[in-house]
Amino acid sequence: MSNKEKTILSGMRPTGKLHLGHLIGVLDNWSQLQKDYNCVFEVADWHALTTKYDQTENIQQHIREMVADWISAGIDPEESIIFVQSDIPEIAELNLLLSMIVSVGRLERNPTYKEQIEELGENDAIPFGLLEYPVLQATDILFPKADVVPVGEDQLPHIEITREIARRFNHLYEDVFPEPEPKLAEVPRLPGLDGRKMSKSYGNAIYLADDEEEIQNKVNQMVTDPDRIRLSDPGNPEVCSVFDFHKIFNNEERVEKIAADCRSAELGCVDCKQELAEVLVAQTADIRAKREELLADPAQLDKILEEGAQQARKIASQTLAEVKNAMNMR
Amino acid sequence: MSNKEKTILSGMRPTGKLHLGHLIGVLDNWSQLQKDYNCVFEVADWHALTTKYDQTENIQQHIREMVADWISAGIDPEESIIFVQSDIPEIAELNLLLSMIVSVGRLERNPTYKEQIEELGENDAIPFGLLEYPVLQATDILFPKADVVPVGEDQLPHIEITREIARRFNHLYEDVFPEPEPKLAEVPRLPGLDGRKMSKSYGNAIYLADDEEEIQNKVNQMVTDPDRIRLSDPGNPEVCSVFDFHKIFNNEERVEKIAADCRSAELGCVDCKQELAEVLVAQTADIRAKREELLADPAQLDKILEEGAQQARKIASQTLAEVKNAMNMR
Ligand code: SF4
Ligand code: SF4
Repeated sequence: MSNKEKTILSGMRPTGKLHLGHLIGVLDNWSQLQKDYNCVFEVADWHALTTKYDQTENIQQHIREMVADWISAGIDPEESIIFVQSDIPEIAELNLLLSMIVSVGRLERNPTYKEQIEELGENDAIPFGLLEYPVLQATDILFPKADVVPVGEDQLPHIEITREIARRFNHLYEDVFPEPEPKLAEVPRLPGLDGRKMSKSYGNAIYLADDEEEIQNKVNQMVTDPDRIRLSDPGNPEVCSVFDFHKIFNNEERVEKIAADCRSAELGCVDCKQELAEVLVAQTADIRAKREELLADPAQLDKILEEGAQQARKIASQTLAEVKNAMNMR
Repeated sequence: MSNKEKTILSGMRPTGKLHLGHLIGVLDNWSQLQKDYNCVFEVADWHALTTKYDQTENIQQHIREMVADWISAGIDPEESIIFVQSDIPEIAELNLLLSMIVSVGRLERNPTYKEQIEELGENDAIPFGLLEYPVLQATDILFPKADVVPVGEDQLPHIEITREIARRFNHLYEDVFPEPEPKLAEVPRLPGLDGRKMSKSYGNAIYLADDEEEIQNKVNQMVTDPDRIRLSDPGNPEVCSVFDFHKIFNNEERVEKIAADCRSAELGCVDCKQELAEVLVAQTADIRAKREELLADPAQLDKILEEGAQQARKIASQTLAEVKNAMNMR
């Protein structure tokens, strides 16, 4: 790991191959953060169990695909620590110790948990791991003594629980943990093919793994301004998903020109999509190549994760030793 | 570990030196069980944290004293595995995995938990570890694939949760765990000096660590038949704590004679107590000697616990590997 002043912890559940929404929303952000922080990136496979404990058939494949995407998108294992959560038994141990100093009531008030209770109906349908989730997340953040955690708005309550656990531990025993600060990232809106949020479960995503033909086909399916029926109708780029993509992936000059030409009906949707497909193919070419290279050589990926685990375990052992010592445990 | 057909798991929280109630209620039973079972005896230091996370100052001293008592009372480290829970990180990992397949509702219905909620009042005063407790206990029982668990009546609901977790795991993934059977032990009643249940917290206990003088002094303080005021009054041994002790520690012939002589007022309470003190001193002489020897040589105790940990870790690693494999985890 590089030796910057502050440490960042972030992670994702291993859901398999990532899409452009992840690239724009998370991975580009992580790549930037690497320049200024010691970064620790976690594949949260234990977290995946909190809701999908009965769907683990492909979890190892999902881990490999996701890590390949991370690295292809610019997460540098020489610069940052990339590791799989369950490779670090110290996290389980630290989680158990930290779970002792949180109250049931505090975890029940977690808004995410409350939402899930409403959704799942009754407590018998709620996995215990779901209630425990913020403790495990706090452990993820606290084991490397992260100073900063990049999060979305919806994760703020979890960071608050983490801060409370850190404070409470420091107060009960010894000053071991910094109180991590949340870092809200501004994420540009990237819709899926159907205009809804891009999501694997909606089947509306363009993946980093998609080849030129798939990208072309998917872009062709994208919804455009619904009021533009004939080529001669002037379009409104502000209500067009294709234009949302141009704004993110095309250059500024072209974006302005496309908006103007759409409004004046000089540009047709077929051509506009063709250009977008080309831009996407070009912008993701390096990622695609790197991804293929990585997945073709599983030993290399394994080695990266092994080295990441070694680094993470070293840090986790150190923190666990401090914690046990502070708590008078063996 | 010996190689019997079936395995027993039992344990205690490290509360420090043990008293005669533990000897009669637990340790004598464990010593017997060693003959017929592979026995695994756990010092449950993580469990101690579920209620006493803020009182850990003396926990290591408590562990040493308790283990010295175990061994002195006949638990044989050559025959059984004696280990400290937190020396086995695999238990924490297995606990995390098993916590995923229990529901919040199931744990909330645990009668012990309900009692504690009533006592502690509100959820904010209830440590999360307390709700988690039966999962951790299930992990203790399941990691050595215990077939039998010696328990008191009040522990039956926890064994039922353990059995449910075992069944559910086997059903969801693969057949890994046997369903452990509870084994209810009949425990003779041993009151404390004041006639209430013998308990450290009541300050009414005779400890295995007590020397001859302390035993003598404590026996002198014991409550007798409250209606026997003068030496010439006939006594009723059935309502006398001293007699409860004679029944357990004295020989049958003397017990009958004491009862008769008490009823006929031929035996006075001072003499009766004197005899009890002598019997107790004699019956605990070997334990006391062994205990002193063990505590005088901390390196020996450490070695016993280290060897126990090695054996327990080997078993736990094996079970954890099976569990991870069944769940498709790394
Ligand atoms: S021309 Fe482009 S921006 Fe305009 S409606 Fe068609 S696809 Fe959308
Ligand atoms: S003689 Fe012994 S058994 Fe009878 S009342 Fe006194 S102490 Fe109890």
